[in-house]
Amino acid sequence: MKSVGINGYGTIGKRVADAVDCQDDMKIVGVTKRTPDFEAKMAVSKGYDLYIAAPEREKLFNDAGIEISGTIDDLYDQLDIIVDCTPGGIGAKNMDNIYREKGLKAIFQGGEKHDAIGKSFNSFTNFEDAQGADYVRVVSCNTTGLCRTLNPIDELAGIKKVRAVMVRRGSDPGQIKSGPINAIVPNPPTVPSHHGPDVQTVMYGLNIITMALLVPTTIMHQHNLMVELKDSVGVDDVIDKLESTSRVLLLETEKGIDSTATVMEYARDIGRPRGDLFEIAVWKESLNIVDNELFYMQAIHQESDVVPENVDAIRAMLEMESDPSKSIEKTNRNMGISG
Amino acid sequence: MKSVGINGYGTIGKRVADAVDCQDDMKIVGVTKRTPDFEAKMAVSKGYDLYIAAPEREKLFNDAGIEISGTIDDLYDQLDIIVDCTPGGIGAKNMDNIYREKGLKAIFQGGEKHDAIGKSFNSFTNFEDAQGADYVRVVSCNTTGLCRTLNPIDELAGIKKVRAVMVRRGSDPGQIKSGPINAIVPNPPTVPSHHGPDVQTVMYGLNIITMALLVPTTIMHQHNLMVELKDSVGVDDVIDKLESTSRVLLLETEKGIDSTATVMEYARDIGRPRGDLFEIAVWKESLNIVDNELFYMQAIHQESDVVPENVDAIRAMLEMESDPSKSIEKTNRNMGISG
Repeated sequence: MKSVGINGYGTIGKRVADAVDCQDDMKIVGVTKRTPDFEAKMAVSKGYDLYIAAPEREKLFNDAGIEISGTIDDLYDQLDIIVDCTPGGIGAKNMDNIYREKGLKAIFQGGEKHDAIGKSFNSFTNFEDAQGADYVRVVSCNTTGLCRTLNPIDELAGIKKVRAVMVRRGSDPGQIKSGPINAIVPNPPTVPSHHGPDVQTVMYGLNIITMALLVPTTIMHQHNLMVELKDSVGVDDVIDKLESTSRVLLLETEKGIDSTATVMEYARDIGRPRGDLFEIAVWKESLNIVDNELFYMQAIHQESDVVPENVDAIRAMLEMESDPSKSIEKTNRNMGISG
Repeated sequence: MKSVGINGYGTIGKRVADAVDCQDDMKIVGVTKRTPDFEAKMAVSKGYDLYIAAPEREKLFNDAGIEISGTIDDLYDQLDIIVDCTPGGIGAKNMDNIYREKGLKAIFQGGEKHDAIGKSFNSFTNFEDAQGADYVRVVSCNTTGLCRTLNPIDELAGIKKVRAVMVRRGSDPGQIKSGPINAIVPNPPTVPSHHGPDVQTVMYGLNIITMALLVPTTIMHQHNLMVELKDSVGVDDVIDKLESTSRVLLLETEKGIDSTATVMEYARDIGRPRGDLFEIAVWKESLNIVDNELFYMQAIHQESDVVPENVDAIRAMLEMESDPSKSIEKTNRNMGISG
């Protein structure tokens, strides 16, 4: 039973904590928080030991009546690995200033730059390369979403070239200070966007070019994919391949799942914690092949799709499992993800 | 001086009325309305003769104290041409049931099907084909937007293939019954969307495939273009070409025009009527060529970009001008469109 800590119990951190906690080969030893807000209170009420990320703020937690188990410095020595879910850019500093010194393995999120961490991770494309690694970055929600469907398509037919337009949510549901409210924002306004190179950190040598924008929605990203194929296959072959691919769901407009809103309604109806959708949702009707180019549309739950990948990364880095499919299957089963 | 009538003084109709009215070779003889609302009142206060589209509703106009010049049946005989701006599908019925019988030339909007009208129109791509025509459909705002930039690129470098993802506004600013409010909607959920074939009705033989969605915004559509070129050109060549293209504006993120919201703010600041933007706005920074494929992003003001095209269509159909560039220049000058 491996001991895992979560540094930063926020949007991703709280989800990774729950995902680790429901596995049978790892456990949460502690989580950290800077602010004594409702999330800190809920961490304690869930039974997680709470450590203060900023020791000078202990009084704030005492005043708020939130029980703490110590400061973050008391946590490191109890851990086999730490999952850093701090805001983008902080993780790399923590690696250089703390984790290296403590000799502590660490996982980072997509907000960190690949070059700062040195190694990026996706369960399906390069699990093996994280075996025993000290520092690994789980790629962002968008990159994870691209890998989840591009990898099986590459296996099926070989990918010659990918073009993708990523329509991203302006902010997460709980955020009230980000926009846009009524605009479409080229983001970045230059082409290509950084998403293509980010995919290449885990799908080596893939020919991909991406464009990205922000729109006024909070619940999901949406991707428009155009994939030139090497081999000639039919749409039914692609459907069969994606239907047998883990962490990918084919959903149908004609069954009422006609937007990102109904995708998330579906996730809530199947009883997922927080209404999360760990899988990538592909609209079945959007799949089409024209001139040996595959077109499709997919939706990404930006708050949760990377969560199972964090669990798999722990197994790879701690050499608990060398076969990615076995880790993926175990993670899925414990999290209630089918397929 | 040619006599023009507007059937349907709504979003497009009121704008076409103003655009015709400021030309020196045509005039508005009357406009029609079904409902005695603020738009009907404003038509009269602007000096347009108002005709009731549904004669049985005369009492409603009388009760509202709106002065009418007669019913629509009194209007037809005074006209050289009618611009039909009724809701999608009604125009084709009007053509078959009324305009043919009256021997009246008519222009329709993009909400009508190409096959129902038989001829589609864009000022830059097929002006000549509308010379003397009886019935012409001005293509939709999205199709007009695609033609405005693809045509000069085709002239410059030859287009091998176009891929486009169209991120469309959910509803117009004045509409309160359409969504989405917080979702991204594949619309249509199948690929390709109808926009590619619609472009082909005015850019014959163009190789184009499109995907489309709806997002929660009201002010503009946004297009993501990927254009494989036949000839090798540089980005500067494309910039020079677009900068010298009428009804296209190159705008820069670094000068603060970083979203569709600031594009429309710009239109309001330059004093355009209703804050309209008749031009297609291209983000200059988005222009890039990779492997002889041109990438760019553009924004379309869905309420107004087709308006100057309606004026040009009148000149072509009434054989007032045989040279498209002369009509375009005249329309632009009278409407205050530069370039």
